[in-house]
Order: sequence, then structure tokens, then C-alpha cells
Amino acid sequence: MKAEIITIGDEILIGQIIDTNSGWIAKQLLQFEVDIVQMTSIPDTEEAISTTLKEASARADLILITGGLGPTKDDVTKKTAAAYFGTTLIRDEHVLRHVTNIFESRNLKMLDINLQQADVLANCEVLFNDYGTAPGMLVHQNQKKFIFMPGVPFEMKFLMEKHVLPLLAKQDPDLFICHETILVGGIGESYLAEEIKDIESELPSSIKLAYLPTLAFIRLRLSGKSRNKSDIMLQVALFKTKLLHRLQQYVIADYDTSIEPYLIKELGRRGATLTTAESCTGGSLAASITAVAGSSAIFLGGTIPYSNALKQQLLNVKEETLIQYGAVSEQTAIEMASGSKKAFSSDYAIATTGIAGPGGGTIEKPVGTIWVAVAGKKEILTKKFQFNNERLINIERTRMNALLLLWKLLVKEKEQDT
Amino acid sequence: MKAEIITIGDEILIGQIIDTNSGWIAKQLLQFEVDIVQMTSIPDTEEAISTTLKEASARADLILITGGLGPTKDDVTKKTAAAYFGTTLIRDEHVLRHVTNIFESRNLKMLDINLQQADVLANCEVLFNDYGTAPGMLVHQNQKKFIFMPGVPFEMKFLMEKHVLPLLAKQDPDLFICHETILVGGIGESYLAEEIKDIESELPSSIKLAYLPTLAFIRLRLSGKSRNKSDIMLQVALFKTKLLHRLQQYVIADYDTSIEPYLIKELGRRGATLTTAESCTGGSLAASITAVAGSSAIFLGGTIPYSNALKQQLLNVKEETLIQYGAVSEQTAIEMASGSKKAFSSDYAIATTGIAGPGGGTIEKPVGTIWVAVAGKKEILTKKFQFNNERLINIERTRMNALLLLWKLLVKEKEQDT
Repeated sequence: MKAEIITIGDEILIGQIIDTNSGWIAKQLLQFEVDIVQMTSIPDTEEAISTTLKEASARADLILITGGLGPTKDDVTKKTAAAYFGTTLIRDEHVLRHVTNIFESRNLKMLDINLQQADVLANCEVLFNDYGTAPGMLVHQNQKKFIFMPGVPFEMKFLMEKHVLPLLAKQDPDLFICHETILVGGIGESYLAEEIKDIESELPSSIKLAYLPTLAFIRLRLSGKSRNKSDIMLQVALFKTKLLHRLQQYVIADYDTSIEPYLIKELGRRGATLTTAESCTGGSLAASITAVAGSSAIFLGGTIPYSNALKQQLLNVKEETLIQYGAVSEQTAIEMASGSKKAFSSDYAIATTGIAGPGGGTIEKPVGTIWVAVAGKKEILTKKFQFNNERLINIERTRMNALLLLWKLLVKEKEQDT
Repeated sequence: MKAEIITIGDEILIGQIIDTNSGWIAKQLLQFEVDIVQMTSIPDTEEAISTTLKEASARADLILITGGLGPTKDDVTKKTAAAYFGTTLIRDEHVLRHVTNIFESRNLKMLDINLQQADVLANCEVLFNDYGTAPGMLVHQNQKKFIFMPGVPFEMKFLMEKHVLPLLAKQDPDLFICHETILVGGIGESYLAEEIKDIESELPSSIKLAYLPTLAFIRLRLSGKSRNKSDIMLQVALFKTKLLHRLQQYVIADYDTSIEPYLIKELGRRGATLTTAESCTGGSLAASITAVAGSSAIFLGGTIPYSNALKQQLLNVKEETLIQYGAVSEQTAIEMASGSKKAFSSDYAIATTGIAGPGGGTIEKPVGTIWVAVAGKKEILTKKFQFNNERLINIERTRMNALLLLWKLLVKEKEQDT
């Protein structure tokens, strides 16, 4: 089945918000026999909406539309869709009661535009939205399915999980799809491709290999599709084994994960705890760890000693060190990591210090000069980076490389233990 | 001029990465007479690429293409584009020298696929890429401009700023475009629309009003376009004044900003400093502050006392408080904020504590129960929130509402001072 995802909203086309819905939907569809042929973002205009519905229905069998149903905007999307399908809008009593209840429970005044949220396409199946006022709508036309959902991410996600995914699960129950993923780190994409190009060229047409890189890690995903379940599982497992063997020194995990949950799980397995001491990453490292549910099992907490005074007060970084080597130095990074570990009694600690930019650089330490230190059971690993001029990218690269360094320390400790 | 932005890459269509390039490009184009009619994401296939180039050139005059030029992928995009334009690929010596230099300076082995990065469309103007190995390409065909750029965000941004935006600045120099933006907080989108609907209906066709909401703030943007500069500036200023007057109590800033840089600037103006004490937001509040260049002028640092032990050790939260009221309570939030302010000698401190979920809820304190406290010169404001079950949204809502509460405290202090 071919699918297209359409996002409606001027705010996307003027760059005010980034469409994250399409990516989330795409991930959910991976488990089904659905190929996404296009993602399209269009403005809240009748012309764009009707043209895109038409073009998408020529390309795809399943058209998922998000956005354009907000209280200040639903007029045009629903009206245009009604005209496109040759139908009208009717007020749904069930939805109206739900909308009224939401407003009453919050002691909010109900406005006219809120009443309109209960209007739905007369030819649709209403997909009831427990989490918000705009209902989803499913329309069947010419063997195509059109699914309209609100753009608010958690409402859209609720509708997908409650209504859309169960619907897809019923299609083609004979086809078997399997994925196997490997997380690697410390190797660039083109080197990785070179390293495994012979294995890649052996892949049968029923198995695809995808490179999914971030700034310091790459997920390699094998996807097999076949009606012969045991055969495709065996083949995918075989190629996975080949990749794992070839990439040994870079393999972080042999299952689908990203670095943060992997490290949390690995520390948890060892009964170990972690703290963070972030200067240049300013909290983003801890935020990425605590974004993972269950992280509190290993993460005791962290500090963001932005000023030198706080580096001393919170982590016992020595004044002499700051004077002699500066805040951005290997020595300071080491004292931050060991200070964090000691002060907060954790088994591991990660420290970052650097000049994220765009200001603050010197000739000796230009913008993008970063030191990372990771303190473990016995030793402290450090690494210097020289990045570019872009603050947010420097922060993100530092964050990821700090996690990579923690992984390297864990591997080293494991090797020493055995 | 009409523009379309095309993003090429399987990784987008399978939901592995979110396309942030299109939004960034769209923002840059706001300053020119360019309407973005569509954003399109397509897979790395010849069929999708050639079809989309054709469809986009029917809709738009300027077609900006990012992605599909990486070392493991450039083959198909460049080959397909060459066929589409009826041209060939040639190796550019200047680019080749640049690519070779990059590899030599990093002491990296040059692979065959890296050499191909120097191949460009024979009919293009090469847009030299100082920051990476894949050059940009500009092709003129049938009065349309096609601009190919790599998908790596900072490389794309460099090419846009160095080559593309200067090119656009030369188009239609007579047309004048102006924007005025107001940042408001503490009011929902539909209430805001209701509040100002009469002003909105008075707007002439040369002025557009856009609502740009996030989870707790809305930016209202007036955009005027005209060949009569003084007239349109006056009109936009007039409507801005009307909106500012009507929305008084919600207006945070009367210029284009977001809450973090606004608060940093406002604290800087008062010569005041800030610290953060984050339990449930786990560092994301500090990360959003330190993401702003220059934040170190007011931000001394922060703590992430995830465990109760660290709440006591870092912020002097009393053990009795944690036992009697629990970590998620108004009392704990207050002690965290005042403790942060006192321990680190800041003028203001923000504290967050709550159950972000999905686990950890109880009947008394279900998932989504959050307390925020902001300590100021004389008093501490607190607020309780009851959010939903989704960890990342709960964290983000808490972060934004914590910033909103700091703003409210600053307003209150200002009123008391006058």
C-alpha cells in the first residue's frame, strides 16, 4: 500500500513551526506494508488543499492529513474537503457533547468557533478524539482512504494509535515484515558504507539496508518483507550477524535503540549511577538522559556550573586550575567530572566545558573548542574537540560525543574486567 | 515569486529524521517577496525526484532542493537531475581540490565515493561549499531557478546565506515588505482570536496577521507588502498599536522574540542573575536558556536534583518537607527555588518538580502533576499544573510555563515598583 502524508498549515510554510507529525506517523507505518511515497506541507488555502488531495490520491492509496482543524482555521480545511468529496458538513451531536464537556470542566466560556469543532464531513466515519476538541475523520472514496487528523501532536498520536493503526493491521495479514537494527558509533557514514559495501551488495531484493545517522551515531537497519516468515527472518538474521561481525569495534547495541536508553540500560544492568556536570552543553545532556522514562533509576542528577564560581562551589574545581588552564581545558574538565562523581557519590560522571559560540573565542581557544571528560570506576577519559561557529550544533555535537565517550569507557572497563 | 522546497531522502520518509531544513529556509525567505507554495519530502528514487522536479516547476519559480547529495547517495540525485535537465555530470576541478584538501587536513583516506562529490551538473553554476564536500548547484531553465544543496543543516545554511539569499535580494528591489511581531503569553489561541476578531477583520488585503503558537506562548505577526514603503509601514504600525492596546495584559514583548531571549534581555537590563533547579524538566529549562548566545551574562548556572538526596544536598530542601509533603509539592518547589537563589546567590531562581510520566503516578498525585516555583526579589510565585500522560510534552509544557511564571513575577515586581 502506498501512503502520502499531508500537513496543512501556513505556520509550517512560513517556517514558524517544524512538522514533526509526519516523521512520527512514518515511523508508526514501518510495521505495516505501507510505503510512504511523499510528505507534503501546504498552506491553509482552498486551492492548495483541493489540488493536493487530488494529486496525493493519484500517488497513494492511503492519504493521512494532519493540521488545519484548529478553532481559528477549521473553516477552510473542512469546507474544502467537503467540496472535494462532493458532500456537506453536519454537526455531530456526540462530538458536540464532548466539546461542551471539555469547556465546562475547565470552566471556560464556549465560543462560536468552538462549536464549529463539532462539524464533520457528512460522508465520514468520525474518529473520536478523547484528547481534544477537533475530531478525526475517515473518508473512503474510489478505493482510497483519506484520514483527517488535528495537528496537535498528542491528539494526532492518540487518533493514530486508537483508530488508524488498528485499521492498517487488518490489511494484508499474510505479509510478514521484520526489522533488525544495529547502533554503531565512532565511524562516519562514508567509512561505514565502504566497510560493508560487499555485504550490502549481497543483499537480496527482499531486504533493504538503511543508514540512519545522527551527529555521532549511525543506526543500520535491515528490513525484510516476504510472505514466507521463517525464510525472511532467517535471512535478515544472517545479514545482521555478518554486519555485527564486520563492525565489531563500532557496534554499541545489536537491537533498535538510541544511545541514551542504551546507556541507561547498561548502567542499570551494572547497578551503577550517573551524574552530569555541564558547562557548554548547558543542561541539554541531562535533558536528553531524563527524556527517557525510567532514567531516574541510574541518574542521580546533575549540575550546570555556567559561572566559574559555581564550578568551584558545586564541583570543587580548584581556583588555581581555572586561573592556570582556564575554564575550557582538559584539567578543568577532569576536575568537573571527578568533582561531580565525588560530591554526589555517583559511579560515573560526564563533564563538558567549551566555547559554544558565536562569541567568547580567543586565538588560543577559538569558538568551538570543547573538552569532554568522563569519570568511571578507576579512570577518567578525556577528549578535545574543535568544532565550528554554530552554537546549537556545537552543543549537540558535544552532547553526543560525551555520550560516545561514556560508552567507550564502559567498553574499556568491560575489557579490563575480562 | 513562488517557491517550493523539496527535501530528498529515504531517512525522512521512514521517519528517522525530521526535516528541519525546510522550516529554516522558509524563515529566511520571509524577508523577500517569496511565497512558499509547498514543501515536499520524497525518497531517493529516480522516479520521485524527476516527477517532483516537474510538478514543482509547474507550481513555483524558485525550487530549492536539499538532501540526496551525501556520499552514499549522490549518484541517484545528481544523475536524475542531469537526465531531467538533459545534461551530463562533469568533475569540477575546483571542488575536487577542495574535497581532497578536506580529507588531507583531517588525515582521512579518500574513497572513490568521495571523489564523486566533485561531480556537478554540466549546466549549473557551482555554489561553492566551504563547510563540506558536497557543492551546491544553481540551474536556470525556462525562467525557473533550481537550487540543489546538501541536506546537512549547517552546510545548507552556509550556502543559503552565502549564495542564495544575496541572489533573492536582487529580485524586485522596489517591493517593500515589513513585519511587526508581538509576543503574548497566558492566553489560548481561540481566546486570542476572539479577543481581536474585530481588529483582524479591519485588516486591508496588503496586511496579513499570523498566529504562531507554541505550548504556552503565541507570536502574532503582522506582515505588510507594498510598493509604497511609508504607507505600508504606517498602516502596519497602526494595527500593531491597536493589538498592543487590546492585548495589554498578555503582551510580553512588542518585537519579534521568543520567551528565552526576552527574559535574558530583561534580566540583563535589571542587572539581575538567574539560576534554575530542575527536577522534572531534567535540564531542558537550563538548556533552552543556554541555547541563547550571551545567556552567560545573566545565567549563573543550575542544578538538576533528580534524587531526593541531591535536592537536600544541593538546595537545602528539608528532609521533613520531603517526608511530609513529598518531592512533588508546593512546599518542595518553594524550598528548591529559594534554596537555589540562596545557595548560588542569584536574584531569581526557577524550580520545577513533578511526575513527568509515564510511570510514577499515584492516586493522589497522578502522572502529569507538576509544581513550579519562581523566587524573586521579595516573593515566590508558585503554580500547580495537571498535565497528561506524555513525558516529553509534560516536560516541555512545564518548561514553558515556568518561563511564563518568571515573566509574571517580573511584571508584578515592576508594577509594585511604580
